[in-house]
Amino acid sequence: MQDDIRMAGNSFGKIFRITTFGESHGEGVGVVIDGCPPRIPLTREDFVRDMARRRPGGTPVASPRQEADRVEIQSGVFEGITTGAPLMLFIRNQDADSRPYEVLRQVFRPGHGDYSYFKKYGHFDFRGGGRYSARETAARVAAGVVAGKILDPVGVKVMAYTVELGGVKAKDMDLSLIEKSSFFCPDMLASKKMEEIVSNVRKEGNSLGGIVEILVKGCPAGLGEPVFDKLDADLAKALMSVGTVKGVEIGAGFEAARLTGSENNDPIAPGGFRSNHAGGILGGISNGDDIVLRAALKPIPSINLEQDTIDRQGEPSKLKFTGRHDIASIPRIVPVFEAMVKIVLADHYLCAKATQSKGH
Amino acid sequence: MQDDIRMAGNSFGKIFRITTFGESHGEGVGVVIDGCPPRIPLTREDFVRDMARRRPGGTPVASPRQEADRVEIQSGVFEGITTGAPLMLFIRNQDADSRPYEVLRQVFRPGHGDYSYFKKYGHFDFRGGGRYSARETAARVAAGVVAGKILDPVGVKVMAYTVELGGVKAKDMDLSLIEKSSFFCPDMLASKKMEEIVSNVRKEGNSLGGIVEILVKGCPAGLGEPVFDKLDADLAKALMSVGTVKGVEIGAGFEAARLTGSENNDPIAPGGFRSNHAGGILGGISNGDDIVLRAALKPIPSINLEQDTIDRQGEPSKLKFTGRHDIASIPRIVPVFEAMVKIVLADHYLCAKATQSKGH
Amino acid sequence: MQDDIRMAGNSFGKIFRITTFGESHGEGVGVVIDGCPPRIPLTREDFVRDMARRRPGGTPVASPRQEADRVEIQSGVFEGITTGAPLMLFIRNQDADSRPYEVLRQVFRPGHGDYSYFKKYGHFDFRGGGRYSARETAARVAAGVVAGKILDPVGVKVMAYTVELGGVKAKDMDLSLIEKSSFFCPDMLASKKMEEIVSNVRKEGNSLGGIVEILVKGCPAGLGEPVFDKLDADLAKALMSVGTVKGVEIGAGFEAARLTGSENNDPIAPGGFRSNHAGGILGGISNGDDIVLRAALKPIPSINLEQDTIDRQGEPSKLKFTGRHDIASIPRIVPVFEAMVKIVLADHYLCAKATQSKGH
Amino acid sequence: MQDDIRMAGNSFGKIFRITTFGESHGEGVGVVIDGCPPRIPLTREDFVRDMARRRPGGTPVASPRQEADRVEIQSGVFEGITTGAPLMLFIRNQDADSRPYEVLRQVFRPGHGDYSYFKKYGHFDFRGGGRYSARETAARVAAGVVAGKILDPVGVKVMAYTVELGGVKAKDMDLSLIEKSSFFCPDMLASKKMEEIVSNVRKEGNSLGGIVEILVKGCPAGLGEPVFDKLDADLAKALMSVGTVKGVEIGAGFEAARLTGSENNDPIAPGGFRSNHAGGILGGISNGDDIVLRAALKPIPSINLEQDTIDRQGEPSKLKFTGRHDIASIPRIVPVFEAMVKIVLADHYLCAKATQSKGH
Repeated sequence: MQDDIRMAGNSFGKIFRITTFGESHGEGVGVVIDGCPPRIPLTREDFVRDMARRRPGGTPVASPRQEADRVEIQSGVFEGITTGAPLMLFIRNQDADSRPYEVLRQVFRPGHGDYSYFKKYGHFDFRGGGRYSARETAARVAAGVVAGKILDPVGVKVMAYTVELGGVKAKDMDLSLIEKSSFFCPDMLASKKMEEIVSNVRKEGNSLGGIVEILVKGCPAGLGEPVFDKLDADLAKALMSVGTVKGVEIGAGFEAARLTGSENNDPIAPGGFRSNHAGGILGGISNGDDIVLRAALKPIPSINLEQDTIDRQGEPSKLKFTGRHDIASIPRIVPVFEAMVKIVLADHYLCAKATQSKGH
Repeated sequence: MQDDIRMAGNSFGKIFRITTFGESHGEGVGVVIDGCPPRIPLTREDFVRDMARRRPGGTPVASPRQEADRVEIQSGVFEGITTGAPLMLFIRNQDADSRPYEVLRQVFRPGHGDYSYFKKYGHFDFRGGGRYSARETAARVAAGVVAGKILDPVGVKVMAYTVELGGVKAKDMDLSLIEKSSFFCPDMLASKKMEEIVSNVRKEGNSLGGIVEILVKGCPAGLGEPVFDKLDADLAKALMSVGTVKGVEIGAGFEAARLTGSENNDPIAPGGFRSNHAGGILGGISNGDDIVLRAALKPIPSINLEQDTIDRQGEPSKLKFTGRHDIASIPRIVPVFEAMVKIVLADHYLCAKATQSKGH
Repeated sequence: MQDDIRMAGNSFGKIFRITTFGESHGEGVGVVIDGCPPRIPLTREDFVRDMARRRPGGTPVASPRQEADRVEIQSGVFEGITTGAPLMLFIRNQDADSRPYEVLRQVFRPGHGDYSYFKKYGHFDFRGGGRYSARETAARVAAGVVAGKILDPVGVKVMAYTVELGGVKAKDMDLSLIEKSSFFCPDMLASKKMEEIVSNVRKEGNSLGGIVEILVKGCPAGLGEPVFDKLDADLAKALMSVGTVKGVEIGAGFEAARLTGSENNDPIAPGGFRSNHAGGILGGISNGDDIVLRAALKPIPSINLEQDTIDRQGEPSKLKFTGRHDIASIPRIVPVFEAMVKIVLADHYLCAKATQSKGH
Repeated sequence: MQDDIRMAGNSFGKIFRITTFGESHGEGVGVVIDGCPPRIPLTREDFVRDMARRRPGGTPVASPRQEADRVEIQSGVFEGITTGAPLMLFIRNQDADSRPYEVLRQVFRPGHGDYSYFKKYGHFDFRGGGRYSARETAARVAAGVVAGKILDPVGVKVMAYTVELGGVKAKDMDLSLIEKSSFFCPDMLASKKMEEIVSNVRKEGNSLGGIVEILVKGCPAGLGEPVFDKLDADLAKALMSVGTVKGVEIGAGFEAARLTGSENNDPIAPGGFRSNHAGGILGGISNGDDIVLRAALKPIPSINLEQDTIDRQGEPSKLKFTGRHDIASIPRIVPVFEAMVKIVLADHYLCAKATQSKGH
């Protein structure tokens, strides 16, 4: 008999419920979506754009590993539309050479989950991070596409973009330029500077952190289920569940701590709120204004510099990567945040829909 | 037939599962705890200290409303120890004069949940915030006491304290002084300055925000259930589910965005981690180091200054409070954060306990 | 540290979610309902009828304990209508003399949960069965009243009635007579015979089992969530979760095992199904026909005859009750079944509502 | 925007949580298991025996469709043992000619879920029953194998066998003969008669129902989580969630309704219970005795006789199958029941494990 008790943690959402599975260097990664409404048109092609945006190799910061990342719809769709049965979306792994990871069988990488996974499970798939590889987020992006299909007809638009990378901040933001930037940064000047700093840090063998903002336009008022499943609480969990995220804020965020009530309160006018320090959420429920979130990302822990660590026996050890790797979780993490926010909103939308339809 | 569909949001936790109920000016607030292990000694007296720390009226910032806040154990305890049956803890409301709130029947208070609740439910108990009053957190503090009974024997200690209020920051922190400060601030000099700024802002009829830090000592490695119910993700949700919280960070938090990988990675030595930018959590799982969290609080929205708003018919209106109210959610929110963190840890501890017991 | 891990089991339902608490001889029993739609009128008086039907002392079979069983609405209602916040309904215990139970501190009653509770929890409230007393079902009946408020406007009617008691079977059933029978039996002749056999068995100090049928009229097609949360699967669980139930069947039930496909299949005609062996459920989803369920009840285990048993130390012991007790769980269990079926249907109705509204 | 709200129903279990997906004539069927403990050895070969026992074509009653039903482990296993990450098990469809089903695009099959699925979803995969095909149970059997890996070291053994088919009842039961019978019937004489009656009914183009008994030996006392997630309640749901089941009973079952308390109560002796009318469960918690369950199966609705029905437009229609099909859900359903009972027990075992380990 195994002596371990665990409580499943790989599902997210209440009505629109996703369960991801798979490892970095196994057969592939995938997601089962249970609770997707029937009669939504869905084909393989719907996934192409977002999977490509998340794919490594497309930009100066990203790792050169090539993945087609084609999403296979394995269940839940018949004659091009969803049936209401669970969707299973699968993304096969390719080009996944696990030999370079053999060194990690014994040694814990600082900043990664190796040590804590070993402490918890006593056994884990260490190849490329295994279950806690960023590879898992491919399944989230696929689920986000389906969530988007629920939100699109409602007019809800979710956009994520880089507002800071390696200390370089976006200033004059033009959201129409996001897709033109290697970092999904809406300030072209800042984007250029980010390219420079990334290039320099790559040469040093080091890595960088940054901040991503997520903007939701068109969200109807009334989403969120107090007192625990508040919209902001679920969004915070969704973002914090993505690797490398160390902080989450909503609206004025940490700056709100330095404002007075008269400065921070958003006056209400017949046409709507006159400011948006709340970030679109009051009392845990969307108020109809834009939802604004920011996530702080630590630097990618994999660096080409020697680091002190220990091995599985607790003995001191040194570790130095030599291969290529991402310099920052930006830009690849940007579509992941969009996906997670879409998943939360679709779930809460389905919860609250009938309330909305009453028109108050 | 009612046209509304809702998805219950008043429960939190998986094994140690709490469900709160009650309103500010109804019969009382309470919590049902399902999943509490049997044979834990529990009496009314266990709740006295934390309920008193959360109680209004004790400090310069708090509102003068007097509440005894006695916790009544209504089920789940027999002959002084828990039975494994659900605990129901009830805290009766007293001294709750609802007449001053009659004006709020029509007018939405800026910064409060009035508008979004009305949009969602079409009907709500507006007396003192009703369900979304800070009064609900009394039930959370009561549940936190029970969670503490699970953590105490493991040696897990949770402490929350104010690190910033109205722009005044704690610098030289001595955690042994927390209970001596009106604001649970571990820097007496800063605490004094906070008293001054609070006093001034009270005269102006305005309010203040701040930042609270939560420190967990003695947490065993291995808590957290990837990939969604990561320990940091659940803690972020727990903190963000508390009213007035606008941001949450873990370890280096937003500052991590400006560090390089070599700066941010915590080197591992045989005796433990040499730094703690991770805040005690790697890959969503506790690593045995201290867990460090911070929550940013917006200023209390209730101010004695005239504000622009609208009424239920959408017509412009003015609103000005004249009564006394809290100037900041600090200090009363401090024990609430302790409670929420205890609840998350107790839940994850029960999930992971057997794993820990194997000794790796 | 307690060594016990448990997974909360006192909640039921997904959208309309109930959590019961309380013991037979504690403060009272109650239920929190989370997910009740807002704007449903609800007062104390709504509960009177069903609480009275479940109350002991009203009929020849029931125990003489007198309970007012008034339901107190402790939260979730404001100005006479639900707010969408959790409802807490509380029923205080009265006239609960626990002294007669002192003998049970050491000795396990055959047929009751004493032995298995002791094995599981090592500690339990043995006074009158404590948590596993039929007293807990008072909370279910209260929750069923609220569920009924969701179903009534849809035209869904739930009726339970006795079809067999102590071997006496109802034959010529007239459902309009149910409330006239001491046993909620729709056959007055059978009801009379049941009174006789109950009277005789009472004299012997023995007890009786029976069968209750539950009929649902007006249930719309489309309720049920395959493949696990099928409507019949959830109904089976709901009924089986009531004490003394040892079997559940739907439609033709066990008799279906002896039919051929051509006999058992219900032909479909433009006006509906020509027969109803299915009991109103196909593929786990309601088909619009009447839903027909039956539950088999074992005799009440408390009897005034000497029984062999053991004590907590495992030593042989004898046990003989001398007090009065119910002879059968009928008739008091009848409104409990109605409540449980209403709770399941309200929950599934809220899940499926929007689908229904599309009119196919 | 789709107008449909659904609540996911394709998951089962709390700690050992399975989510099945897939359709009869899609890519395949599969299951994600979240909450499986780490370090359990698991290979493809572990699934071969039970998948073969469930496979069609092996016996006189089964349909001739040939499926290899190889289980592919797509995630959660590394170097031959489970990692604690979710397991995804996939069973590809083969030899699935969907052309014969084209006729079903318009016409509802009596006794099947066609009509109710259409009413619910407005769209469904009608090929071979699609999602509600018995094909889905292949995924359950695969999950049951993993559950068995948790139960085996505890000494829990689950056996299912046919006790009635087409009116023929097993009498002299020798459980060692189960695998020798085409119907998993422990009475060889009855098994022979079942073969005859099946052969005759096949010629008529009709079908048969039956009763399967499930016996659990070695189950420790203490499994089950009152008051809703009682062990018997969860078992009843598990069995009733399998297609063609119309009734479930435990221990004495429906017969208990005709016994007196003194007959039905199981006396307790130092060595254990002297009888087992309870079927191994008291108060919803296992008592350490054998668990005995029975499920009643309706005849397979697919028959080669003309039946009255309607089409999607509600017009009268006739339907007559000509192909070959199973005559009864027995014997193929037998390993499915074993799997479902194993899944329930593994889940409850993980819930209650620590309690057991205290030794009372």
